[in-house]
Amino acid sequence: MGTPMPEPTDPEVLLDAKRFQVIRKYQKTASGERLPRQIIRHPGAVVILPLLDGNRLVLIENYRIAVEETLLELPAGTLEPEESPLATAHRELAEETGYRAGSMEPLLRFASSPGILSEEMHLFVATDLSLGEMALEAGEEIIPKIVAWEEAVAMSRDGRIHDAKTLVGILYYEMFRRRR
Amino acid sequence: MGTPMPEPTDPEVLLDAKRFQVIRKYQKTASGERLPRQIIRHPGAVVILPLLDGNRLVLIENYRIAVEETLLELPAGTLEPEESPLATAHRELAEETGYRAGSMEPLLRFASSPGILSEEMHLFVATDLSLGEMALEAGEEIIPKIVAWEEAVAMSRDGRIHDAKTLVGILYYEMFRRRR
Repeated sequence: MGTPMPEPTDPEVLLDAKRFQVIRKYQKTASGERLPRQIIRHPGAVVILPLLDGNRLVLIENYRIAVEETLLELPAGTLEPEESPLATAHRELAEETGYRAGSMEPLLRFASSPGILSEEMHLFVATDLSLGEMALEAGEEIIPKIVAWEEAVAMSRDGRIHDAKTLVGILYYEMFRRRR
Repeated sequence: MGTPMPEPTDPEVLLDAKRFQVIRKYQKTASGERLPRQIIRHPGAVVILPLLDGNRLVLIENYRIAVEETLLELPAGTLEPEESPLATAHRELAEETGYRAGSMEPLLRFASSPGILSEEMHLFVATDLSLGEMALEAGEEIIPKIVAWEEAVAMSRDGRIHDAKTLVGILYYEMFRRRR
């Protein structure tokens, strides 16, 4: 019977990059037109809010060539094929900070930049932390940085933290989850 | 003298899409290696928090083919060449909601997804609003939706709002700017 023909609605891959694909999809308008859209397909990612003793936060300083800047971020990383967001969260926290989490609680899911990018972020809160070894990937330049929770909130306010996923994580937790 | 040779560090354009480019850059590691990185170059964007009477928020329902979902978002849009973020904010607010802003105040800048994407978002607070005509682009399917401020915060908490820039805008304003 041979290989089945692809469905005519299958998106066309324009570029297959290491960490994403650029594809073309067709959007049907209200008037019945089909408009081509170039979008970036991404497997999704996790971001982790690691709390030490309930009142300190483990951040990372991370050089980001896309913005040519070292950003202060929550640990985060991309889902591997067949990997659950929970497993990714445990793996990335250990690789990027050395910490292992006794508890990893899902908090929120959100879209990073849905105008062009399919990436969905899964936010977790990591507690009951114990320190082990870091395991950075080639080219990763990451330095863990532990700050008081109140300092993380102040950094979000004054712009020292200006990474979207990190702002969402800190502000959401401060507003809706933190016990005072 | 002819055209100067490009610098060897000039990024190579792998794909030139309508709203972004995929480029290859080389990242120098601590050991002196040069690692190729494929990243998405984006001109930047604005996101607008439009406040009506101080206690209602103008959101939009926006179909997003990248995530195949209609999201509840703050109005937003991409910078045109040579356009300032302030001008983009006035233009996009009018196009997407019909409202013109008497005041447009910059609040915060942040990176959308700096692991792969160069996009920087400029967040503005729009007040002193007066209603005019909308002007959607081809293929845009946008419906303005006015909600009470407390409802926007509740929607951010329970996941009805799950777009990163919209969460940053609402949570940042609620925590650091709102007069009670």
